[in-house]
Amino acid sequence: MIEAIDFRNALSRLTTAVHVVTTNGTSGAHGFTASAVCSVSDDPPTVLVCMNRAARSHVHFVGNNTLCVNVLGTQHEPLSNVFASKLDSDARFEHGIWDTLVTGAPALEDALVNLDCEIESVQDVGTHSVFMCRVVAIRQSEQEESLVYFNRAYHHLRQSEPA
Amino acid sequence: MIEAIDFRNALSRLTTAVHVVTTNGTSGAHGFTASAVCSVSDDPPTVLVCMNRAARSHVHFVGNNTLCVNVLGTQHEPLSNVFASKLDSDARFEHGIWDTLVTGAPALEDALVNLDCEIESVQDVGTHSVFMCRVVAIRQSEQEESLVYFNRAYHHLRQSEPA
Repeated sequence: MIEAIDFRNALSRLTTAVHVVTTNGTSGAHGFTASAVCSVSDDPPTVLVCMNRAARSHVHFVGNNTLCVNVLGTQHEPLSNVFASKLDSDARFEHGIWDTLVTGAPALEDALVNLDCEIESVQDVGTHSVFMCRVVAIRQSEQEESLVYFNRAYHHLRQSEPA
Repeated sequence: MIEAIDFRNALSRLTTAVHVVTTNGTSGAHGFTASAVCSVSDDPPTVLVCMNRAARSHVHFVGNNTLCVNVLGTQHEPLSNVFASKLDSDARFEHGIWDTLVTGAPALEDALVNLDCEIESVQDVGTHSVFMCRVVAIRQSEQEESLVYFNRAYHHLRQSEPA
Protein backbone atom coordinates (compact mmCIF):
# COMPACT_ATOMS: atom_id res chain seq x y z
CA MET A 1 0.00 0.00 0.00
CA ILE A 2 1.51 3.30 -1.15
CA GLU A 3 0.70 6.40 0.89
CA ALA A 4 -0.37 9.42 -1.18
CA ILE A 5 2.34 11.57 0.40
CA ASP A 6 5.06 9.08 -0.53
CA PHE A 7 3.74 8.97 -4.08
CA ARG A 8 3.72 12.76 -4.36
CA ASN A 9 7.25 12.96 -2.93
CA ALA A 10 8.41 10.39 -5.47
CA LEU A 11 6.78 12.24 -8.36
CA SER A 12 8.44 15.48 -7.31
CA ARG A 13 11.67 13.80 -8.50
CA LEU A 14 10.40 13.56 -12.09
CA THR A 15 11.42 16.67 -13.99
CA THR A 16 8.70 17.97 -16.30
CA ALA A 17 8.18 20.81 -18.71
CA VAL A 18 5.50 23.32 -17.66
CA HIS A 19 2.45 23.78 -19.89
CA VAL A 20 -0.67 25.88 -19.95
CA VAL A 21 -3.44 23.79 -21.52
CA THR A 22 -6.38 25.78 -22.92
CA THR A 23 -9.74 25.32 -24.59
CA ASN A 24 -12.46 27.57 -26.01
CA GLY A 25 -16.14 27.13 -26.78
CA THR A 26 -19.61 28.41 -25.94
CA SER A 27 -18.62 28.71 -22.26
CA GLY A 28 -15.63 30.91 -23.14
CA ALA A 29 -11.93 30.26 -22.78
CA HIS A 30 -10.49 28.09 -20.03
CA GLY A 31 -6.98 27.03 -19.13
CA PHE A 32 -4.85 25.41 -16.44
CA THR A 33 -1.20 24.81 -15.68
CA ALA A 34 -0.23 21.20 -16.31
CA SER A 35 2.87 19.11 -15.89
CA ALA A 36 1.29 15.83 -16.99
CA VAL A 37 1.60 16.14 -20.76
CA CYS A 38 3.25 13.34 -22.70
CA SER A 39 4.13 12.38 -26.25
CA VAL A 40 2.40 9.19 -27.38
CA SER A 41 2.83 8.46 -31.10
CA ASP A 42 3.97 10.32 -34.19
CA ASP A 43 1.68 8.37 -36.53
CA PRO A 44 -0.87 9.75 -36.11
CA PRO A 45 0.69 12.66 -34.17
CA THR A 46 -0.72 12.15 -30.68
CA VAL A 47 -0.07 13.57 -27.23
CA LEU A 48 -1.89 13.02 -23.99
CA VAL A 49 -2.87 15.41 -21.22
CA CYS A 50 -3.92 14.39 -17.70
CA MET A 51 -6.43 16.60 -15.91
CA ASN A 52 -7.96 16.40 -12.45
CA ARG A 53 -11.68 15.69 -12.82
CA ALA A 54 -12.37 17.91 -9.82
CA ALA A 55 -11.04 20.98 -11.68
CA ARG A 56 -13.70 23.62 -12.39
CA SER A 57 -12.90 23.73 -16.09
CA HIS A 58 -12.84 19.95 -16.64
CA VAL A 59 -16.40 19.94 -17.99
CA HIS A 60 -15.48 22.58 -20.60
CA PHE A 61 -12.53 20.60 -21.96
CA VAL A 62 -14.74 17.53 -22.32
CA GLY A 63 -17.55 19.58 -23.89
CA ASN A 64 -15.36 21.46 -26.38
CA ASN A 65 -13.40 18.33 -27.30
CA THR A 66 -10.41 20.48 -28.31
CA LEU A 67 -7.39 21.84 -26.47
CA CYS A 68 -4.09 23.58 -27.06
CA VAL A 69 -0.90 22.61 -25.21
CA ASN A 70 1.29 25.70 -24.74
CA VAL A 71 4.83 24.78 -23.68
CA LEU A 72 6.22 27.51 -21.43
CA GLY A 73 9.53 29.32 -21.73
CA THR A 74 11.54 30.72 -18.84
CA GLN A 75 9.78 34.09 -19.13
CA HIS A 76 6.43 32.42 -18.37
CA GLU A 77 6.93 31.59 -14.70
CA PRO A 78 4.38 34.26 -13.62
CA LEU A 79 1.95 32.95 -16.24
CA SER A 80 2.33 29.44 -14.87
CA ASN A 81 1.38 30.73 -11.43
CA VAL A 82 -1.65 32.61 -12.81
CA PHE A 83 -3.03 29.48 -14.46
CA ALA A 84 -2.48 27.47 -11.27
CA SER A 85 -4.18 30.10 -9.10
CA LYS A 86 -7.75 30.66 -7.92
CA LEU A 87 -8.30 33.43 -10.48
CA ASP A 88 -11.33 32.91 -12.73
CA SER A 89 -10.93 32.21 -16.42
CA ASP A 90 -11.35 35.76 -17.71
CA ALA A 91 -8.77 37.11 -15.27
CA ARG A 92 -6.28 34.41 -16.20
CA PHE A 93 -6.31 35.31 -19.89
CA GLU A 94 -5.53 38.95 -19.09
CA HIS A 95 -1.99 37.63 -18.67
CA GLY A 96 -0.03 36.59 -21.75
CA ILE A 97 -0.62 37.32 -25.43
CA TRP A 98 -3.05 34.91 -27.04
CA ASP A 99 -4.25 34.09 -30.52
CA THR A 100 -5.59 30.90 -32.08
CA LEU A 101 -4.47 28.29 -34.58
CA VAL A 102 -7.04 25.78 -35.94
CA THR A 103 -9.35 24.68 -33.12
CA GLY A 104 -9.92 28.08 -31.57
CA ALA A 105 -8.26 27.12 -28.28
CA PRO A 106 -6.07 29.99 -27.02
CA ALA A 107 -2.48 29.72 -28.28
CA LEU A 108 0.21 31.57 -26.31
CA GLU A 109 2.11 33.66 -28.87
CA ASP A 110 5.60 33.23 -27.44
CA ALA A 111 5.33 29.66 -26.16
CA LEU A 112 8.22 27.33 -27.03
CA VAL A 113 5.66 25.44 -29.04
CA ASN A 114 1.87 25.28 -29.39
CA LEU A 115 0.23 21.91 -30.01
CA ASP A 116 -3.35 22.51 -31.14
CA CYS A 117 -5.39 19.34 -30.68
CA GLU A 118 -8.67 17.53 -31.09
CA ILE A 119 -9.46 15.28 -28.13
CA GLU A 120 -9.89 11.77 -29.55
CA SER A 121 -10.78 9.95 -26.33
CA VAL A 122 -11.17 10.53 -22.61
CA GLN A 123 -10.19 7.79 -20.16
CA ASP A 124 -10.91 8.24 -16.46
CA VAL A 125 -8.18 6.85 -14.18
CA GLY A 126 -8.56 7.43 -10.43
CA THR A 127 -8.91 11.15 -9.77
CA HIS A 128 -7.93 12.20 -13.30
CA SER A 129 -8.99 12.08 -16.94
CA VAL A 130 -6.48 11.16 -19.61
CA PHE A 131 -7.21 13.11 -22.81
CA MET A 132 -5.77 11.37 -25.86
CA CYS A 133 -5.22 14.21 -28.33
CA ARG A 134 -4.65 14.29 -32.10
CA VAL A 135 -2.38 17.22 -33.00
CA VAL A 136 -3.90 19.25 -35.84
CA ALA A 137 -1.65 22.31 -35.84
CA ILE A 138 1.83 23.18 -34.57
CA ARG A 139 3.61 26.49 -34.09
CA GLN A 140 7.18 26.87 -32.86
CA SER A 141 8.79 30.05 -31.60
CA GLU A 142 12.42 31.12 -31.58
CA GLN A 143 12.41 30.88 -27.78
CA GLU A 144 15.22 28.61 -26.63
CA GLU A 145 14.86 28.45 -22.85
CA SER A 146 12.55 25.95 -21.23
CA LEU A 147 10.72 26.42 -17.93
CA VAL A 148 10.87 23.16 -16.01
CA TYR A 149 9.69 21.87 -12.64
CA PHE A 150 11.77 19.61 -10.39
CA ASN A 151 11.66 19.01 -6.65
CA ARG A 152 8.74 21.44 -6.27
CA ALA A 153 10.67 24.36 -7.76
CA TYR A 154 10.98 26.04 -11.13
CA HIS A 155 14.25 25.74 -13.01
CA HIS A 156 15.50 27.23 -16.27
CA LEU A 157 16.99 25.09 -19.02
CA ARG A 158 19.06 26.76 -21.70
CA GLN A 159 19.54 25.07 -25.04
CA SER A 160 23.04 26.53 -25.18
CA GLU A 161 24.11 24.75 -21.99
CA PRO A 162 23.94 21.03 -22.66
CA ALA A 163 25.36 18.52 -20.19
CA MET B 1 -2.12 17.38 -41.91
CA ILE B 2 0.91 17.36 -39.62
CA GLU B 3 4.17 16.00 -41.06
CA ALA B 4 5.98 13.53 -38.80
CA ILE B 5 9.16 15.60 -38.93
CA ASP B 6 7.33 18.74 -37.78
CA PHE B 7 5.76 16.77 -34.95
CA ARG B 8 9.13 15.38 -33.85
CA ASN B 9 10.69 18.85 -34.02
CA ALA B 10 7.87 20.22 -31.90
CA LEU B 11 8.22 17.46 -29.32
CA SER B 12 11.95 18.09 -29.04
CA ARG B 13 10.92 21.34 -27.31
CA LEU B 14 9.22 19.46 -24.46
CA THR B 15 11.73 18.87 -21.68
CA THR B 16 11.47 15.43 -20.11
CA ALA B 17 13.17 13.44 -17.42
CA VAL B 18 15.05 10.36 -18.65
CA HIS B 19 13.96 6.93 -17.45
CA VAL B 20 15.01 3.34 -17.91
CA VAL B 21 11.88 1.19 -17.79
CA THR B 22 12.46 -2.49 -16.96
CA THR B 23 10.61 -5.77 -16.59
CA ASN B 24 11.49 -9.35 -15.61
CA GLY B 25 9.87 -12.73 -16.15
CA THR B 26 10.37 -16.14 -17.72
CA SER B 27 12.05 -14.50 -20.72
CA GLY B 28 14.57 -12.75 -18.50
CA ALA B 29 15.10 -9.07 -17.82
CA HIS B 30 14.37 -6.38 -20.41
CA GLY B 31 14.63 -2.62 -20.37
CA PHE B 32 14.56 0.49 -22.55
CA THR B 33 15.23 4.20 -22.25
CA ALA B 34 12.01 6.19 -22.18
CA SER B 35 11.07 9.82 -22.06
CA ALA B 36 7.32 9.26 -22.27
CA VAL B 37 6.49 8.61 -18.63
CA CYS B 38 3.78 10.63 -16.95
CA SER B 39 2.04 10.96 -13.61
CA VAL B 40 -1.71 10.24 -13.83
CA SER B 41 -3.41 10.03 -10.43
CA ASP B 42 -2.38 9.75 -6.80
CA ASP B 43 -5.50 7.80 -5.78
CA PRO B 44 -4.80 5.09 -6.67
CA PRO B 45 -1.13 5.95 -7.33
CA THR B 46 -0.87 5.62 -11.09
CA VAL B 47 1.67 6.51 -13.75
CA LEU B 48 1.70 5.76 -17.45
CA VAL B 49 4.47 4.67 -19.77
CA CYS B 50 4.37 4.86 -23.57
CA MET B 51 6.28 2.20 -25.52
CA ASN B 52 6.77 1.66 -29.23
CA ARG B 53 4.99 -1.56 -30.20
CA ALA B 54 7.79 -2.29 -32.69
CA ALA B 55 10.36 -2.57 -29.87
CA ARG B 56 11.82 -6.07 -29.45
CA SER B 57 10.98 -6.18 -25.76
CA HIS B 58 7.37 -4.95 -26.08
CA VAL B 59 5.98 -8.50 -25.96
CA HIS B 60 7.82 -9.16 -22.69
CA PHE B 61 6.39 -6.10 -20.94
CA VAL B 62 2.89 -7.13 -21.98
CA GLY B 63 3.50 -10.75 -20.96
CA ASN B 64 5.02 -9.96 -17.56
CA ASN B 65 2.42 -7.30 -16.79
CA THR B 66 4.84 -5.56 -14.43
CA LEU B 67 7.48 -2.86 -14.89
CA CYS B 68 9.77 -0.59 -12.92
CA VAL B 69 10.32 3.08 -13.84
CA ASN B 70 13.87 4.11 -12.90
CA VAL B 71 14.32 7.89 -12.97
CA LEU B 72 17.88 8.72 -14.00
CA GLY B 73 20.32 11.04 -12.28
CA THR B 74 23.04 13.04 -14.00
CA GLN B 75 25.54 10.19 -13.52
CA HIS B 76 23.37 7.90 -15.66
CA GLU B 77 23.89 9.47 -19.08
CA PRO B 78 25.99 6.47 -20.26
CA LEU B 79 23.32 4.10 -18.92
CA SER B 80 20.65 5.98 -20.85
CA ASN B 81 22.66 5.44 -24.02
CA VAL B 82 23.11 1.73 -23.27
CA PHE B 83 19.38 1.18 -22.90
CA ALA B 84 18.70 3.09 -26.11
CA SER B 85 21.32 1.12 -28.06
CA LYS B 86 21.23 -2.06 -30.13
CA LEU B 87 22.82 -4.10 -27.31
CA ASP B 88 20.83 -7.18 -26.31
CA SER B 89 19.14 -7.40 -22.93
CA ASP B 90 21.86 -9.30 -21.08
CA ALA B 91 24.55 -6.88 -22.22
CA ARG B 92 22.46 -3.87 -21.17
CA PHE B 93 22.10 -5.05 -17.59
CA GLU B 94 25.88 -5.43 -17.26
CA HIS B 95 25.78 -1.64 -16.84
CA GLY B 96 24.38 -0.18 -13.61
CA ILE B 97 23.74 -1.82 -10.24
CA TRP B 98 20.37 -3.54 -10.07
CA ASP B 99 18.21 -5.14 -7.42
CA THR B 100 14.45 -5.62 -7.12
CA LEU B 101 11.59 -4.25 -5.04
CA VAL B 102 8.20 -6.02 -5.16
CA THR B 103 7.46 -7.11 -8.73
CA GLY B 104 10.89 -8.47 -9.58
CA ALA B 105 11.50 -5.88 -12.31
CA PRO B 106 15.10 -4.59 -12.15
CA ALA B 107 15.41 -1.51 -9.91
CA LEU B 108 18.43 0.74 -10.46
CA GLU B 109 20.04 1.16 -7.04
CA ASP B 110 21.03 4.81 -7.37
CA ALA B 111 18.11 6.09 -9.43
CA LEU B 112 16.50 9.34 -8.25
CA VAL B 113 13.45 7.21 -7.62
CA ASN B 114 12.18 3.73 -8.54
CA LEU B 115 8.48 3.27 -9.22
CA ASP B 116 7.72 -0.45 -9.18
CA CYS B 117 4.42 -1.11 -10.94
CA GLU B 118 1.77 -3.57 -12.01
CA ILE B 119 0.42 -2.85 -15.49
CA GLU B 120 -3.33 -2.34 -15.11
CA SER B 121 -4.22 -1.81 -18.76
CA VAL B 122 -2.64 -1.52 -22.18
CA GLN B 123 -4.10 0.88 -24.75
CA ASP B 124 -2.72 0.89 -28.29
CA VAL B 125 -2.52 4.38 -29.84
CA GLY B 126 -0.91 4.68 -33.27
CA THR B 127 2.58 3.22 -33.15
CA HIS B 128 2.69 2.96 -29.36
CA SER B 129 1.15 1.21 -26.37
CA VAL B 130 0.15 3.22 -23.33
CA PHE B 131 0.71 1.16 -20.18
CA MET B 132 -1.43 2.38 -17.29
CA CYS B 133 0.53 1.34 -14.20
CA ARG B 134 -0.42 0.98 -10.54
CA VAL B 135 2.56 1.84 -8.34
CA VAL B 136 3.11 -0.89 -5.74
CA ALA B 137 6.53 0.10 -4.35
CA ILE B 138 8.63 3.26 -4.24
CA ARG B 139 12.28 3.83 -3.38
CA GLN B 140 13.97 7.23 -3.30
CA SER B 141 17.69 7.88 -3.24
CA GLU B 142 19.65 10.81 -1.87
CA GLN B 143 20.62 11.74 -5.43
CA GLU B 144 19.66 15.36 -6.13
CA GLU B 145 20.62 15.93 -9.77
CA SER B 146 18.23 15.05 -12.56
CA LEU B 147 19.20 13.97 -16.07
CA VAL B 148 16.86 15.68 -18.54
CA TYR B 149 16.44 15.80 -22.29
CA PHE B 150 15.64 18.98 -24.22
CA ASN B 151 16.24 19.94 -27.84
CA ARG B 152 17.79 16.54 -28.57
CA ALA B 153 20.51 16.93 -25.93
CA TYR B 154 21.06 15.88 -22.34
CA HIS B 155 21.07 18.54 -19.65
CA HIS B 156 21.74 18.43 -15.90
CA LEU B 157 19.32 19.90 -13.38
CA ARG B 158 20.55 20.58 -9.87
CA GLN B 159 18.09 20.86 -7.02
CA SER B 160 20.32 23.51 -5.47
CA GLU B 161 19.98 25.80 -8.48
CA PRO B 162 16.33 26.81 -8.76
CA ALA B 163 15.21 29.53 -11.15
